[in-house]
Amino acid sequence: MSLQPLAAVLVHTPVVDRRGDRVTTAVTNLDLHDIARSARTYGLKRFYVVTPVVEQQRLVGKLLGHWTEGSGAEYNPSRQQALELIRVFSSFDEVLDDWRNMTGAEPLPILTGASREDGISFAECRRQLQQGPGLLVFGTGWGLAPEFFSNDWQVLEPVLGVDGYNHLSVRAAAAIILDRLAGRFGL
Amino acid sequence: MSLQPLAAVLVHTPVVDRRGDRVTTAVTNLDLHDIARSARTYGLKRFYVVTPVVEQQRLVGKLLGHWTEGSGAEYNPSRQQALELIRVFSSFDEVLDDWRNMTGAEPLPILTGASREDGISFAECRRQLQQGPGLLVFGTGWGLAPEFFSNDWQVLEPVLGVDGYNHLSVRAAAAIILDRLAGRFGL
Repeated sequence: MSLQPLAAVLVHTPVVDRRGDRVTTAVTNLDLHDIARSARTYGLKRFYVVTPVVEQQRLVGKLLGHWTEGSGAEYNPSRQQALELIRVFSSFDEVLDDWRNMTGAEPLPILTGASREDGISFAECRRQLQQGPGLLVFGTGWGLAPEFFSNDWQVLEPVLGVDGYNHLSVRAAAAIILDRLAGRFGL
Repeated sequence: MSLQPLAAVLVHTPVVDRRGDRVTTAVTNLDLHDIARSARTYGLKRFYVVTPVVEQQRLVGKLLGHWTEGSGAEYNPSRQQALELIRVFSSFDEVLDDWRNMTGAEPLPILTGASREDGISFAECRRQLQQGPGLLVFGTGWGLAPEFFSNDWQVLEPVLGVDGYNHLSVRAAAAIILDRLAGRFGL
């Protein structure tokens, strides 16, 4: 059974820092490149980036212009295919609106986080993603702010390796999660 | 059945550029951080970095000093646990020697690359990794130079998503490959 439309969201606000304080993180080019390439690999329809900082939105726009329209598109067409999935919004609500408009269905946000113990399994998540459009939500910094988790949205179990160590980069975690959920070899 | 000792190698020379020319790439801090954290997550014993450039070896040493002995170790112990897996060598032969000394067995290099079609499957690779110490070899730039592939070493099939697109970052590819080969949910 194939997946329904799937999108990823990289949230820069509200997230928490290492002390648990609510912060806005900076957008980094490499997050965008890496996660866009992973998103394209696994057939995602969108890669949303949430930042309220106008200057950073402008920088992302410049990056996308270079790689999707400018000389970068000619230089590296595979990078173009990845980065053209990106859409930048100021808030998560705007992402929900856009994804709702695009899919014609109520979004099913699935929150990710390394420290959650109440999450659904990857197998269960994969089953749910076969029912309707999904929206995988990743936090930068030390993770999504608590308010995300008070919405009755699904939470995915953390990626664990061989022991309790769970300090993957968001770029690595997103890659593994997409492989497990949207890959042909998924659970 | 549990895995035998496993290590990853990130090769900066000899690799190829987009035209297929033999080059030496620059070491980037983020590759080291990301892949070290993935390596630690999946219980690897070593994360080798190959660069012949003395100045870059020195920079890596400085990075490691900060995170494994300096103030960074206190600030972020989980990062210390990851980065202390790193060993820097000038050539792949030196990596083979070190891994041979460490494991007491002849190394089993497994080469990765996005464009190889002659590779063994992930399932087969996982079986082989249960027989003896393994050494997963990743290339930077546009991949490992051809000479790696003339050694009769194993080659792993590429990571494919939903279609033929295979342009993952080395950070994302390493994360997915470790999850598939060394994760508890592996194939």
